[in-house]
Amino acid sequence: MTVPEQAAAATHTDPIAGAVLLMAIVLVAAKLGGDLAVRLRQPSVLGELVAGVILGNLALAGFDGFEPIEDSPAIDFLARIGVLILLFEVGLESTVRQMMRVGLSALLVALVGVAVPFALGWLVGAWLLPDASSHVHAFLGATLSATSVGITARVLKDLGWSQSDEARIILGAAVIDDVLGLVVLAVVSGVIVAADSGASMSYGDIGLILGKAAAFLVGSLALGFLLAPKLFHLASHLRARGVLLAVGLAFCFALSWLSSVIGLAAIVGAFAAGLLLENVHYRDFVDRGEHGLEELLEPISSFLVPFFFVVMGMRTDLRSFADPGVLGLAGVLTLAAIAGKQACSLAVRGGVNRLSIGIGMVPRGEVGLIFANIGMSLTLAGEPIISPSVYSAVVVMVIVTTMLTPPALSWSLSRRPPAEPTEPPPVEATMTAAATTEDEDP
Amino acid sequence: MTVPEQAAAATHTDPIAGAVLLMAIVLVAAKLGGDLAVRLRQPSVLGELVAGVILGNLALAGFDGFEPIEDSPAIDFLARIGVLILLFEVGLESTVRQMMRVGLSALLVALVGVAVPFALGWLVGAWLLPDASSHVHAFLGATLSATSVGITARVLKDLGWSQSDEARIILGAAVIDDVLGLVVLAVVSGVIVAADSGASMSYGDIGLILGKAAAFLVGSLALGFLLAPKLFHLASHLRARGVLLAVGLAFCFALSWLSSVIGLAAIVGAFAAGLLLENVHYRDFVDRGEHGLEELLEPISSFLVPFFFVVMGMRTDLRSFADPGVLGLAGVLTLAAIAGKQACSLAVRGGVNRLSIGIGMVPRGEVGLIFANIGMSLTLAGEPIISPSVYSAVVVMVIVTTMLTPPALSWSLSRRPPAEPTEPPPVEATMTAAATTEDEDP
Repeated sequence: MTVPEQAAAATHTDPIAGAVLLMAIVLVAAKLGGDLAVRLRQPSVLGELVAGVILGNLALAGFDGFEPIEDSPAIDFLARIGVLILLFEVGLESTVRQMMRVGLSALLVALVGVAVPFALGWLVGAWLLPDASSHVHAFLGATLSATSVGITARVLKDLGWSQSDEARIILGAAVIDDVLGLVVLAVVSGVIVAADSGASMSYGDIGLILGKAAAFLVGSLALGFLLAPKLFHLASHLRARGVLLAVGLAFCFALSWLSSVIGLAAIVGAFAAGLLLENVHYRDFVDRGEHGLEELLEPISSFLVPFFFVVMGMRTDLRSFADPGVLGLAGVLTLAAIAGKQACSLAVRGGVNRLSIGIGMVPRGEVGLIFANIGMSLTLAGEPIISPSVYSAVVVMVIVTTMLTPPALSWSLSRRPPAEPTEPPPVEATMTAAATTEDEDP
Repeated sequence: MTVPEQAAAATHTDPIAGAVLLMAIVLVAAKLGGDLAVRLRQPSVLGELVAGVILGNLALAGFDGFEPIEDSPAIDFLARIGVLILLFEVGLESTVRQMMRVGLSALLVALVGVAVPFALGWLVGAWLLPDASSHVHAFLGATLSATSVGITARVLKDLGWSQSDEARIILGAAVIDDVLGLVVLAVVSGVIVAADSGASMSYGDIGLILGKAAAFLVGSLALGFLLAPKLFHLASHLRARGVLLAVGLAFCFALSWLSSVIGLAAIVGAFAAGLLLENVHYRDFVDRGEHGLEELLEPISSFLVPFFFVVMGMRTDLRSFADPGVLGLAGVLTLAAIAGKQACSLAVRGGVNRLSIGIGMVPRGEVGLIFANIGMSLTLAGEPIISPSVYSAVVVMVIVTTMLTPPALSWSLSRRPPAEPTEPPPVEATMTAAATTEDEDP
């Protein structure tokens, strides 16, 4: 390097130059994939996932130029912010009151959606891994009980169903599932750790985690219900530009943080923030000619959300499908995962598209992988609970349930329109409807 | 930590939970500061800077709860993306043709704006640091020659002047200054390194850096001029939602990367990308009812740009002002920095608000700090070229020129309206005008 080059490098090479190039590649890949999906009458999120799978697996074909995307902390960060924005946006499309109306259905769906897959996962383990201990079988059950709602939320949004009762039941159930899944995982892990060390897990430990989860849900909802109107009324007095958007995002980020600190997924907080905010809270802003929050979020989500799905696609290692020893367990596990969540539809009271609810609960996404990862780090008598080949089978199950959901949900929603639509759900209309329709509840 | 807490931490604690809390704090602080500034009839960017100064210096008052913001790579990343988005947005408000019209003025302003501050900085060094070598004096001159255009771009935008000839001259000159400043720095550093090692700097080295800079400017502008219309016409055939925004951002990011790779500031690329894109390039999108690019960028910039200015404020260490030994040099250096750029106004041909152009060129921002940092790392006979106390004086100069610009520019712009406004510049109108007005050039 010559002297002027050194000086130039020291002066001006922006530390994020590499990251912005990767961002440009991801954005273009996402839109190319989305275009392909739309042409094939699929939700564009499927195209973004496939674009990610291609970018992430070109190394198998000898081209590793896109590998930096997978390793980039910047892209990972944007993906994580993206999914928060997505869940916030989806939460904004419903109100707490509307969620309450489907509360019982959501609770039933969540309970069945944890219990049945847990039992099926246990049975699959007992059947195909007869030599393993019952702890391994229980852990497989826990892995199947998780629900990852990002994909479903995005498909419902892509197809204009975000404001339907079906969407509210699925999203409400997913929030409850997140809490239940956490409890199941904590209990199963606790039992295994206790068995390994000869100690025993106390009921107090279980109670503690249950109490924390309940405290967050009830506390944040109650507090937000009381505080959100006051907060936004106060904010409406601020004269700087973009106050509504900034305060809305700050509210979303603060609840995401709170939710994560308490041990729940950050997206639960983002969704709760959206739920708590209602149009009336920021009517002061809209009355003076500013855009509504949904309309302001649209470009931000269109910028950031694709990072999440492309990254999720990239983490799909196609080599997992190449191991015949793994594929047997993977296939049965996948069937159990799908069948287990279909049982949810039996828990729904009439009048809604039950099939779609069952399908909407299917994707395991990253939550299943996180569970399996924990399983690999837990040991019993020196052996990991989840062996590498079982882990690969779980990965295949997660990939298949994730990739199957967009086309399956798209098919089931078109098959039977909602019986009691709260809003008419034509695809084009929802692009702008969110910003103009007011919540019609009293 | 109990077992369920471990499991909970492993399962769900989002790695970005801490970052999103910091983001919420920055957003709220930015808007509170912006509100205060607007109430005092100042551009809101001044309020964001002051909010940053307060967050960054509360530790002096014994409260260090905000220090993680300054150390957060996530916040730093968002700030860097924010300034790219800002310059892209400002670039979008002008066309290459409009820039060409003020090209000669911009070139003259840039040349004077590098030469006069360089000479003044040298003289200040010779006067106040008579014992130091002439290399130190030259380096002080180089530090004064830099221009940091982020602040000025934002003030012009806040006040609705982005589409004026004054804005185009300042921004055009800043781009050229960036190239010239780089050459000055490279030459001065090269001479010092050569003097230190006994070698000598070749004209070839100087020619190389000049050539690279010229190649980028001419090459990217020519290529973009030819390719941008084709690129966006192609993209308009994609059916996924948000294609215009994604492709526009990808174009901005790709040019930022290119510009950084070539050794220029990334913001030069972002600005060039905005300049190259014209409304006609994405008329296909707007014709089918999508929003224009400016309108889509507005919420994204309103989300990300404040991070840049709050971070810039946070990096202001108020303790620099407490050292009386530093303040003398700092004061004279600041006067030289301001006076040197005022000479620019003499280079402008008639009919525009000359005073504002001189003031708009004043801020040194982070570019001055980067120069000074390089000076600290260069040694001559074992001594750093820029001693710690000289560095502190440079920091004070950067702070004062940066903080003075928003109120000064606001005052000078209100004092004399533009003689030949290309667009009427009322403050409210520009919020939406960018999206609806078409470029009227043939």
